[in-house]
Parts: sequence; C-alpha cells; structure tokens
Amino acid sequence: MSQLRKDPIVERWVIIAKERGKRPSDFVFNQHKKVVGFCPLCPGNEYTTPNEILVYGRQSNIPNSGGWKLRVVPNKFPALVVEGELDKRGEGMFDKMNGIGAHEVIIETPDHDASIAMMSVEQISLIFRAYRDRINDLSRDMRIKYIMVFKNYASAAGASLEHSHSQLIALPIVPYLIQEEVVGSAGFHKYKDRCVYCDIIRQELKSGERIVLENNEFVVLCPYAPRSPFEMWVLPKFHSSDFNYIDDTKLMSLADIFSQTMKRLDKALPDVPYNFMLHTGPVRTPNLDYYHWHIEVMPKLTMIAGFEWGTGFYINPTPPEESAKFLRDIKL
Amino acid sequence: MSQLRKDPIVERWVIIAKERGKRPSDFVFNQHKKVVGFCPLCPGNEYTTPNEILVYGRQSNIPNSGGWKLRVVPNKFPALVVEGELDKRGEGMFDKMNGIGAHEVIIETPDHDASIAMMSVEQISLIFRAYRDRINDLSRDMRIKYIMVFKNYASAAGASLEHSHSQLIALPIVPYLIQEEVVGSAGFHKYKDRCVYCDIIRQELKSGERIVLENNEFVVLCPYAPRSPFEMWVLPKFHSSDFNYIDDTKLMSLADIFSQTMKRLDKALPDVPYNFMLHTGPVRTPNLDYYHWHIEVMPKLTMIAGFEWGTGFYINPTPPEESAKFLRDIKL
Repeated sequence: MSQLRKDPIVERWVIIAKERGKRPSDFVFNQHKKVVGFCPLCPGNEYTTPNEILVYGRQSNIPNSGGWKLRVVPNKFPALVVEGELDKRGEGMFDKMNGIGAHEVIIETPDHDASIAMMSVEQISLIFRAYRDRINDLSRDMRIKYIMVFKNYASAAGASLEHSHSQLIALPIVPYLIQEEVVGSAGFHKYKDRCVYCDIIRQELKSGERIVLENNEFVVLCPYAPRSPFEMWVLPKFHSSDFNYIDDTKLMSLADIFSQTMKRLDKALPDVPYNFMLHTGPVRTPNLDYYHWHIEVMPKLTMIAGFEWGTGFYINPTPPEESAKFLRDIKL
Repeated sequence: MSQLRKDPIVERWVIIAKERGKRPSDFVFNQHKKVVGFCPLCPGNEYTTPNEILVYGRQSNIPNSGGWKLRVVPNKFPALVVEGELDKRGEGMFDKMNGIGAHEVIIETPDHDASIAMMSVEQISLIFRAYRDRINDLSRDMRIKYIMVFKNYASAAGASLEHSHSQLIALPIVPYLIQEEVVGSAGFHKYKDRCVYCDIIRQELKSGERIVLENNEFVVLCPYAPRSPFEMWVLPKFHSSDFNYIDDTKLMSLADIFSQTMKRLDKALPDVPYNFMLHTGPVRTPNLDYYHWHIEVMPKLTMIAGFEWGTGFYINPTPPEESAKFLRDIKL
C-alpha cells in the first residue's frame, strides 16, 4: 500500500506510491515517446481494465463488454486504494498515514482518436455527468475528505495513455492548494460578506479585457495572475460551491461552453498538451457562501524550473489580456 | 517593465514578463531541442553579455575580457530589473506592482562542456563564493526582500543555454514557499524551542536510512517527504539561517560535499536534468533561531500534471530510503 507523508516544515503532503516503484534504471528521460499498438481503453479490450464502476450508453446488461459511450474503471496502478485503514501515525518527528482513498479513470469516449476539442457537446456532457456521479458516490465514504478530478492531455502534460481519459483521486485530507482557496475566499467573505469569485466575475465581465467567452450560465476568462500563457478558468455565473449539485440543464450548458473553449485552445495552439482540474468544495460541506467551484485549464507552454520550485512564483511571458484577446478573436 | 500580480484568492504571485512576450506561434512544443553553435557564455564572447557585475580569476584589469574563472552578468532578458519604483497599486479588486528586483546569471566556468559533476572542488567553491558575494551586495538594496539562487541543468529542466550557469533573482517580496518555511519552522520553534531542521538532522543521522553522505560540517539526505525520486537536501550541521554568513573554510567543505553529491547523482542517473535551489533566510533577518539554510536538489524524473497542479500533492514512485541507499552505495 502507498503512504501519505507530510513534510515536517511546510503543509506539503506527498504520496509515496511504492507500487509504482522505480529504480534509477526505470526512468526514461525522453518523456515524449509515443506508445503505439494495443490500447487498454479501447472497445473490445474491456477485459484488460479492472472491473468498471460506472458505464453510460451500453444497451446490454453485460458488464465490461462493448457498446458503451463512457466507462469509469479503477486505475490499474492506483496512487491510493479504497481497502484498509488510514492508521495515522508518527515516525519519530515525522507524520504519515496509509494511502487510503480512490483512484479512478474516466474513459471519456470509445473513439481512440477523439480529443475533447473534437467531441460532440453530448459526449462532453457525459464526461461532466460522470464526474458528478462519481463525486456523489464517493462522498458517502466518511474517510474521504476531498475529491480531485483532473485531466492530463498528451504525454508532455503527463498522460501515459493516448486514448482520451480523465482521472479522479479521492483523498483522506483536504489538499493544500484547495485549503488555501477555501481559507483565502473565507477571509475575503469575512471582510466583504461577498464571494470573491462572484466579485471577480462581476469585475471581469464589466471590463471585458480578460473574457474569452460566456453564455447564460458560464463565463470563461484568463485569470488576472495566470501561472501559464493561455491559462483559462471556467466559472459558473451563479454562485455554487459544489460541482456535484449541478443540474442536467446547467451540465449541458457547461458542456457547450467547454466544447467551444477547447476548440478555441486547439485552434490557437494546435494539439497543445494541457491539464485541467475541477476545483470544487471539500466533500460534505454543501453550499458554502464563500467558495465557488470552477475548472482551471492550464496549457503546458512554460516550465516548472528552479525559480518556481524554490519560490512558488511563476514567470509568465504572456499577459492574460493578450491570451484572452487571442482566444476571443478566434473564428470557429 | 514586467509586472508582479497577485492572485486575488491565494498567496500566489506571478511575474508577467512582457519583455519575454509571446504569441501562440512563438511557443515551441519540442522543448528538448539542443541549441548548437555560438555560445554567449564562452570566453571570447564576453562582449555579447551585459557588462559583468563580478569576476573571479582574471589577471588583467580589462572588464569583460577573457582569462576569467567565473563571471556574473545581468540576465539579458530579465524577469525583474533594478531601475524604477515598485509603485504598488490596485486594479479594481486586484493587486500589482512593478517588476523591480534583479536577475543575474552566474557563469560557473569558462569550460563550455563542464557540468558541476565534472568540475574541481576549487571551481565549485567559486560558484558558492559568487552566490555569497552577490547576496551580500544585493542585500543593501532596501527594496529587495528575498534573493533566490537556483540552477536549471539541461533543457528539460528549463535551461535555455548549455554552458553551465546558475541564476539569481532578487525579489521585492518574500516568496510564498519561503514564507511557508519561515512560518512553519517558527511554529515548531515556538512549540519546542528548537530548530526543526536541526531536529531533522539529529533524527536522520541517528537512523541513517535516508542519509546519502556527510562530512564534518554538512550532511546530504533524501527528505522524508520528497516531491521527486532522488530529491536531496544539503544541510549544514551547524545552525545558521543565512547562507551569506558562511566563512571560507565552510564554503570549501560545502564545495567538497556538493561535488561528491553531484558526482553520485550523475553516476546514478547519467546526465539527468535537475534543478537546485538555495534556501536561505529573507535578507536582513540575520541569525534566526528557527530557520536553517539549505540547498534542495530536484532531479527531473516525474511530471507536474493535473493532480499536482490541482492539489499541491506530489506522487513519488520512489521512497527516499531507496533513493538514499542507492546514492549512498555508489562507488565514485
């Protein structure tokens, strides 16, 4: 079983995932190699994945067979597992616990070659529906304190399989960056009695200079202090701290604007590697006045190097006003 | 001039370095391309760098000429500049200031092909001496609150030039990650009346399982909760919060252990890309009881992907006990 360990000085946890254990000779420096041939996520190869947890669109009742539109399966090499006890304990002055949680793979489409930029709005809505359904299911496990859903697109952004998929990791502690957001937005709320994200949306819609696109329910903007060129945040215009309470109408509206967002990104930077992360409130903290769920999209265009590792600062060569204008002006 | 902008929710600053500005077409996805041909850091090409700030080993009195052992020059494409006013101000609800500070390049050797793993202890001692001298000089500028010295080795770790060099960025605010360390170690000190780093060194030397090597003044260990396989920390055994107060004897001892450290890393993972960062106390806060300067060495073996971006957690496939044993057992 993997271990969660805390740095003794700062609030940083790491997962020591020994099951993925590597000796020096196992590290491949060229991370751009393309894996070709057999794909375990393709229809017909369902027997190679762990048993599915969720499936959409299959007519038959035979689990792990073909004919599906989307599947969710446990990660074959999980960073965290559901079975076992947390067993929080010390090791001298250090702190650790067992790697309890969940690690799932959302197989977004049966089509091996489809990227989100190419998918129908209907298919994208299934992806968000799967996020919602899995979060709702896992939230019933009281050991789980946070659920992070994310996507790595292309090997340069960390994807080890080509077939379009996202991942979900359920954690036994609220991770540091989310805790920072929760504390920061709670501080703003205490001071102003307003949600900081709602205020951002209001100011950004008024100025317009960092807006990429909007519809009735959602807005996509380049944040004021972006870590990366072309970083985008997708925010609901309505206040909500929990993604998993989204209704079907809004889910479809989200799929629609997300489709346009990813098409724009792909047209601006064809096939750019990217990550996106769903930031939602900690599980079982419904309807927080001060927190606001959103999706952060981070194209991989700059590097985390010594300065960023040492300081937590980011150097970004492209002002968000320029990124937003470029993405806004794209003709689809 | 570049701008410093703060995220309105969390304590994250970014440098919008417009001078390095890029449109989508300027981004090169293959970041592994090797630059060949003319090297601006080589002897004979001194005229292509900005005027040198510091030089060691030159017999003649002609600045920016040959015959040197180490040079420090301003970065030609600086993220921050010395000239100007900070002019801290708001932009609606957002906060920003001008990009005031310094950005310097330490040209570590005249030999284009030498890496630190290949250099003499004497040459490495010049590098640390340059760090000390530059920190001491820049500390007199009251606008500067923190000085981060770091190295990016190989293009995959962010180096844009092949010739061995490190960089220094002087900042008008104490960066987040350093502030975290300062606050975290101050909290420990308040509770225990001891330095947390001194405690770590004591426990680690006693157990030995994460020790890579030691000499009279320094210890190299794999930290308990490492972000990366083969991450190493170089720590002085004596308590000191300020690197820039190091004396010449200890500087030579540091160069000696650092040389062996980098030779071991290079033997374990030949030519692995890496970053290292000097963590020292904020400028003009001498002799803190609770903080302890150190160097963090991070080989680039894993990726920052969606999970890390979203949570601040790191997944590390190699336990530090295994990394340390492997490095310890290497025969040089």
